[in-house]
Amino acid sequence: MSQILHLPPARGAVDADDFKALFRHHPAGVAVVTLRGHGGPVGFTATSVISVSAEPPVLAFSVAATSSSRPALEEAGTVVVNFLAEDQRDVAARFATSGIDRFAAGDWHPLPTGEPVLEGATAWVRGRIEERVPVGDSLLLTARAVRVGHGHRREPLVYVNRGYHRLGEHSRLT
Amino acid sequence: MSQILHLPPARGAVDADDFKALFRHHPAGVAVVTLRGHGGPVGFTATSVISVSAEPPVLAFSVAATSSSRPALEEAGTVVVNFLAEDQRDVAARFATSGIDRFAAGDWHPLPTGEPVLEGATAWVRGRIEERVPVGDSLLLTARAVRVGHGHRREPLVYVNRGYHRLGEHSRLT
Repeated sequence: MSQILHLPPARGAVDADDFKALFRHHPAGVAVVTLRGHGGPVGFTATSVISVSAEPPVLAFSVAATSSSRPALEEAGTVVVNFLAEDQRDVAARFATSGIDRFAAGDWHPLPTGEPVLEGATAWVRGRIEERVPVGDSLLLTARAVRVGHGHRREPLVYVNRGYHRLGEHSRLT
Repeated sequence: MSQILHLPPARGAVDADDFKALFRHHPAGVAVVTLRGHGGPVGFTATSVISVSAEPPVLAFSVAATSSSRPALEEAGTVVVNFLAEDQRDVAARFATSGIDRFAAGDWHPLPTGEPVLEGATAWVRGRIEERVPVGDSLLLTARAVRVGHGHRREPLVYVNRGYHRLGEHSRLT
């Protein structure tokens, strides 16, 4: 006869909800990663973009298994990371929404190499994907920067605790 | 007879200074990564800590070749990531300063497993290092969370453009 045992989490285990809560309070700049997919442009909002090395110039970001962009990312050779400005909350939300055409608004143009660049971003960088490290069902990717572009100089968009923030003199610690 | 040629950067090359400037304007929460070294506690300020996967709970961060913590990180099996609060600018600066005893202030205690936990952090997570990905001279590491701790609830510290910022209602976009 079987018996259902309600065991405590294994020693050394951290609950997924606890882990998410931890990072929910860790602020991050907001980017949209775009690429050229087989069926058209692909893109998703990412708060996980970091610089890994300046020489050579390499960045990293992660993507969840559940992301609709994941299949395209598995095949793409290059991506563009668009760094969002404080007036682009709507863009951040749109590129995090499922089941819509995220590019329908038309506020982008393709590079000669096909990757979309979003209008209004503070800056963007085109990168050649170098490493794909599977982490559970997620993927950690590194990309070597091959081209950089700049938009109008504006304050960056920050995301923390499910809300957007604007940095500037009002937030500076002096 | 040899001749020195002043060539333009190779097509597809991004200058290290341009790349650094790009990420200087990308905001990030501030953490101090600590570990148990052979000669005592080791730690360094990191603005590159990201969540990669919640299930299993895995984070990532990078460390430069020039970091004095690099040798200890090559050997360590575990680290603690301490998330800094808005009143810990001095801690962030101290753990980014070379040639000093970063732990002399005594504002920390060791876990039973030896890694230092900093007093006053908003939260911390102990992680078992899983992957070490060499990227140029830098190292990209992943760590699986095995224990989480919480401090007093305070606003997080944010770093951008060589300055520290505090988030709160004053910075929130509504």
